Amino acid sequence: MILELVDLFVHDGTQTEFDKALEQGLHNVLRHAKGFRGYRINKGIEQNTRYVLMNYWETLENHTVDFRGSPAFPQWRAYITPYLAKPPVVEHFHVAGELAQ
Amino acid sequence: MILELVDLFVHDGTQTEFDKALEQGLHNVLRHAKGFRGYRINKGIEQNTRYVLMNYWETLENHTVDFRGSPAFPQWRAYITPYLAKPPVVEHFHVAGELAQ
Repeated sequence: MILELVDLFVHDGTQTEFDKALEQGLHNVLRHAKGFRGYRINKGIEQNTRYVLMNYWETLENHTVDFRGSPAFPQWRAYITPYLAKPPVVEHFHVAGELAQ
Repeated sequence: MILELVDLFVHDGTQTEFDKALEQGLHNVLRHAKGFRGYRINKGIEQNTRYVLMNYWETLENHTVDFRGSPAFPQWRAYITPYLAKPPVVEHFHVAGELAQ
């Protein structure tokens, strides 16, 4: 499983609207993408304009090729871009180990 | 639930040793901490010296007060510090929503 880690900073004061836009984008677009396995939304405590979105994909190419090359990509970005204070920073990771207690 | 997101960069070439040290530190120290709920280890694809460690805590204070104020904190750091190319960057997040497919 591949983690796409998305670091987002929104304009201060838009968090409530951004929460809704993010949920809509995830539900209307991203969750239907090929190989999409799930997401987790995390809201910054030290920096309340920071969000870390974790998207999980079956393969790296499901995100970088299939999704980014599809019409769904600009649709997804249209939900969140109006709120962003700077461009998202995205990197990918192998999920290497975990423990849930 | 609180996410502690730990951004780690290791010296290149030490990844295999670091993998072992990280597992040992998590299993011998961190998983016994009060309020510790689990972890996930993520290994960078674009940057193979980058690790993102997600630690989950019952409350923020379980990490910032209980754990960091205990003898377990330097024990944990002793496992991982020798491999780090720079100081860890740590921030906390509220887990605000998720979807597992």
